[in-house]
Amino acid sequence: MQKTLTALTLALIAAAPIGAQDKPAAPLAPSEIVAAAPKTDWTAIAPSDLLVMDIAPDAKGRPRRVVIQLMPPPFSQGWIGNIRKLAAARFWDGTSVNRVQDNYVVQWGDATEKKALPAGLATVPESEYLVSDPRRFPFRVEVDNESVHDSYADYAMPIMGWPVAFFEDGVWPVHCYGMVGVGRNLSPDTGTGAELYTVIGHAPRHLDRNIAVVGRVIEGIEHLSSLPRGTEALGFYRTAKERTKIRSVRLGNEVTGLPGYEFLSTESGSFAAYADARANRRDAFFIRPAGGADVCNIPVPVRRVSVK
Amino acid sequence: MQKTLTALTLALIAAAPIGAQDKPAAPLAPSEIVAAAPKTDWTAIAPSDLLVMDIAPDAKGRPRRVVIQLMPPPFSQGWIGNIRKLAAARFWDGTSVNRVQDNYVVQWGDATEKKALPAGLATVPESEYLVSDPRRFPFRVEVDNESVHDSYADYAMPIMGWPVAFFEDGVWPVHCYGMVGVGRNLSPDTGTGAELYTVIGHAPRHLDRNIAVVGRVIEGIEHLSSLPRGTEALGFYRTAKERTKIRSVRLGNEVTGLPGYEFLSTESGSFAAYADARANRRDAFFIRPAGGADVCNIPVPVRRVSVK
Repeated sequence: MQKTLTALTLALIAAAPIGAQDKPAAPLAPSEIVAAAPKTDWTAIAPSDLLVMDIAPDAKGRPRRVVIQLMPPPFSQGWIGNIRKLAAARFWDGTSVNRVQDNYVVQWGDATEKKALPAGLATVPESEYLVSDPRRFPFRVEVDNESVHDSYADYAMPIMGWPVAFFEDGVWPVHCYGMVGVGRNLSPDTGTGAELYTVIGHAPRHLDRNIAVVGRVIEGIEHLSSLPRGTEALGFYRTAKERTKIRSVRLGNEVTGLPGYEFLSTESGSFAAYADARANRRDAFFIRPAGGADVCNIPVPVRRVSVK
Repeated sequence: MQKTLTALTLALIAAAPIGAQDKPAAPLAPSEIVAAAPKTDWTAIAPSDLLVMDIAPDAKGRPRRVVIQLMPPPFSQGWIGNIRKLAAARFWDGTSVNRVQDNYVVQWGDATEKKALPAGLATVPESEYLVSDPRRFPFRVEVDNESVHDSYADYAMPIMGWPVAFFEDGVWPVHCYGMVGVGRNLSPDTGTGAELYTVIGHAPRHLDRNIAVVGRVIEGIEHLSSLPRGTEALGFYRTAKERTKIRSVRLGNEVTGLPGYEFLSTESGSFAAYADARANRRDAFFIRPAGGADVCNIPVPVRRVSVK
């Protein structure tokens, strides 16, 4: 049976009061709504959908781990299949973080561009940057609400746990802070997945539908976003010794002792209340609720849960 | 004589071709348009409108200077008057950067909250978070174009050199990456200007009209955005020694040897072409122009010019 998700969630956001007339006695902050969400409103992330990247310890010897969640079908699965193969082949072990451009991206991979790729990587077509056939979704995608403005699409909002945009030609994952994409050369190249980046600034939405988005950093992004900026064009480091070494990249199911992770289900009541509160802050600090929020300002909450 | 700026610029953005049919032979990247802009399309920034903050050198002894441009009238002038007095009184010398919250803000000031403020600081009312009287602008503000979507206002775009939003209740400067705001306690406090922050992540637009925006970092933001994140709530540092010392903060006209700075006039033909190119990238890397851009993804270009 197909479910209709988008119209419902949109209606909940649009119905939120903007003024202070209906102000409840003790309005909750978004973080309080998330903290109060029942267990049933959370979705477990399978360890096999995590990519765990350990980079060299910091100057004080403290370990630095970055945990990435890979996107679910129907999005970007060709590249994600490659990424699984690259992790299995230990491709990234010994490579490095090579580019840190302020208010833009951190990029990592094989700086020499000479390391052999594992066999069997797919060449994914550009058409996979978005999903144009609604039958590829597990529910019916309805575009019937104009109230959620987006500067780049008909509208954009979190569904299925991910920030996506909707337009007449399809649905695609968007470049919000912390999202992970696939570096590529000029078209028609679409990249293999061997070269990855994450966003560390204002959402560079002009990259949407031009590059594959394959996941997001759910823990440890500060280990990338606080790295020294590269001083060459596009933020590449000038010298090899400025690069940060990558010790290992593994799928989560290969890492012992990894905590469990859950995201707040974007189709839950808690998420609707959270999204409403992000768009209309009524907690004590705020004097004037915004009355709206762009998709990248409604980040999907992720939490650790104890190891099973 | 009053000029009408917004309708013209909006029309230029809206009229840009979205498809590839009219693709010119060698479309310019935004950076190339900026590089080719004639001298007459640039506006000099008066040194007295700059705030120059020197923080302690980095681990390798390299100096770290952050240059901030203060906003022009009619925006936030009450707080900016205070900031000029605070700089003249050397208030920030010996204070520190106390808070670095990933994907949010870097905040600085007197961590002890006990340092005496200079005499004569204004108490600015909350009504000054936006400008509601159009007569306070040096030109007529027209709201007659619906084509520039914004998730937080009727629309938002750069005018007078700054990213601003327009809504039925007024016009206000928006929280884009690098914008500088005034920390405050709970309403009705609006802050004096002694506690400042800058945005180092996705635009936290929910802060618009809730906090005073007084300027933007035009050089050296990487010295703030790459600082280690604080591990306490809201990104405050746990210990005093984690803080980065501020050596001095001066108005630009008090600093010898400072380069000149100019911004690309937002009402110039070059800016219209730049904004169009930001919204519709047609340079070689891009296969699909976005067809739009949010105001924070059209940062106003700033450049150094030689010292006079």
